[in-house]
Amino acid sequence: MSLTVVGSIAFDAVKTPFGERERMLGGSAVHFSLAASFFTDVRVVGPVGDDFGEPEYDALRQRNVNVDDVERVDGGKTFFWAGEYGWDLNTRETLATELGVFGEFSPKLSEEARAADTLFLANIQPDLQRQVRRLCEGARLVGLDSMNLWIETARDSLVAAIGEVDLVFMNDSELRQLTEQPNLVRAAREVMAMGPRVIVAKQGEYGAALFSSEGFFALPAYPLETVVDPTGAGDSFAGGFLGYLASQGEGAAEDDSALRRAMTYGSVIASFNVEEFGTERVQRLTRDEIEERFAEFKAMTHFESVPA
Amino acid sequence: MSLTVVGSIAFDAVKTPFGERERMLGGSAVHFSLAASFFTDVRVVGPVGDDFGEPEYDALRQRNVNVDDVERVDGGKTFFWAGEYGWDLNTRETLATELGVFGEFSPKLSEEARAADTLFLANIQPDLQRQVRRLCEGARLVGLDSMNLWIETARDSLVAAIGEVDLVFMNDSELRQLTEQPNLVRAAREVMAMGPRVIVAKQGEYGAALFSSEGFFALPAYPLETVVDPTGAGDSFAGGFLGYLASQGEGAAEDDSALRRAMTYGSVIASFNVEEFGTERVQRLTRDEIEERFAEFKAMTHFESVPA
Repeated sequence: MSLTVVGSIAFDAVKTPFGERERMLGGSAVHFSLAASFFTDVRVVGPVGDDFGEPEYDALRQRNVNVDDVERVDGGKTFFWAGEYGWDLNTRETLATELGVFGEFSPKLSEEARAADTLFLANIQPDLQRQVRRLCEGARLVGLDSMNLWIETARDSLVAAIGEVDLVFMNDSELRQLTEQPNLVRAAREVMAMGPRVIVAKQGEYGAALFSSEGFFALPAYPLETVVDPTGAGDSFAGGFLGYLASQGEGAAEDDSALRRAMTYGSVIASFNVEEFGTERVQRLTRDEIEERFAEFKAMTHFESVPA
Repeated sequence: MSLTVVGSIAFDAVKTPFGERERMLGGSAVHFSLAASFFTDVRVVGPVGDDFGEPEYDALRQRNVNVDDVERVDGGKTFFWAGEYGWDLNTRETLATELGVFGEFSPKLSEEARAADTLFLANIQPDLQRQVRRLCEGARLVGLDSMNLWIETARDSLVAAIGEVDLVFMNDSELRQLTEQPNLVRAAREVMAMGPRVIVAKQGEYGAALFSSEGFFALPAYPLETVVDPTGAGDSFAGGFLGYLASQGEGAAEDDSALRRAMTYGSVIASFNVEEFGTERVQRLTRDEIEERFAEFKAMTHFESVPA
């Protein structure tokens, strides 16, 4: 089993009510990779500049993420994002976006990256997502994330990209925006009609909901008393989800039980991700801690089957 | 087992994208009563005017709700509320509020109403809630709802009222507002520290979360493709919840499994309530339909216990 993820590799500056970091490892492909690495072999694809050094490579390597397809651009600068969260950690203000080498990114995948059986197209321009999708023709399971920017500026491309994948991970507000459907069930059904067999609506502090032809499943977020930094929660969720699903072999995306466990593993990793800044918590996370919280999720969502 | 509910009895005018009603039976005590009536004997307390006629009494009586404590004020007018919902059914605009007899309401409970073992203080002025609480000294289980208006205008009274009940049902935004805590887990804990042993955070389309000393439980809302009229969803939820709990006898509020089933029955009745205008759907609801949807809730929230 191998999983290739294509997306941003970044330095983030983040300020929250609990503290700040001026420059830390981030980016959608990074958060996704670290999360997925607990379940399967991961290869990360994305551009970096000269400023991306051994400590950053090591953070990925320590979790056995294959960095051979990280494309280093001489004289370039790594994508930089700065943002601030207020007390309502569901909303954030972007203070700076410096695309750097990410602005000219044209994905070149090695033979090994193209041979992955699972592919994740993190939130990048939808035409680039389609380009990567074509390079990985043999992938049996392909997921995609997107954002409001592409709905507003490249809707047709995004709809085409969605038509070429198996799973869509998007915020519930983005699913509504894309379909202009205020009702989430209808919005998910309309996106499913574009092609994918599974739609995952990420709902921030309310958890996530899964729509497939087999039905509906929803999971609350883990009830944390302190969310230090929500950056990367969505990508960690997708990484835990798709990493687990990749580890279950062929047919997992058609297996309702596997999908529900994938939802739970995604929620588990996301819940750890937000406990500290950036990738700090996930970098020292253990499989035992993951299984422990998986069991807690079960305990906090199950009720008896026989009404008294 | 008997349950007394004190709150508003009203006529509502509601407009949603799916249609409108110019005058229909509503009010927190009405929605609560109808929901609770599927599980236990209910007695409703609240004022009405001359305009409250036999059709309205019959709607309650048909569900075996005892209306002996409905206080008819000669020459008075029944509380009237008019509101409109847009496509985002989570937000509504109030177009008119005519308190009528509700403005002078001073609860007088019959001996039978006072003797109830379960009491629900629907969303009324907190000093009135406390007054009713004192009249029902023998109640072993007391729940309370409130709203932003009382947090803003009668905070001290509300905190005192909360200190005298066992369960609090409030919207998650109101729990945050009351405690000035953006984190819901902390907000719930702070409200619990005021006295109640159970806090239920109503989360609209995202479902509901339960906090107690035994832990945390959350349930998504039932995934409806069409929500016709959300009015009364919160009161229907509380009615299903507390009605079921009342039917389980002494100690049910300390029984985590009973509380989880109560959450589920509350969610089931609320989901039916919003399928049609006002009380229309709940009035012809059957216990079989309730049990069927209860089973669906189980199916859409459970995942396997043993990770593969």
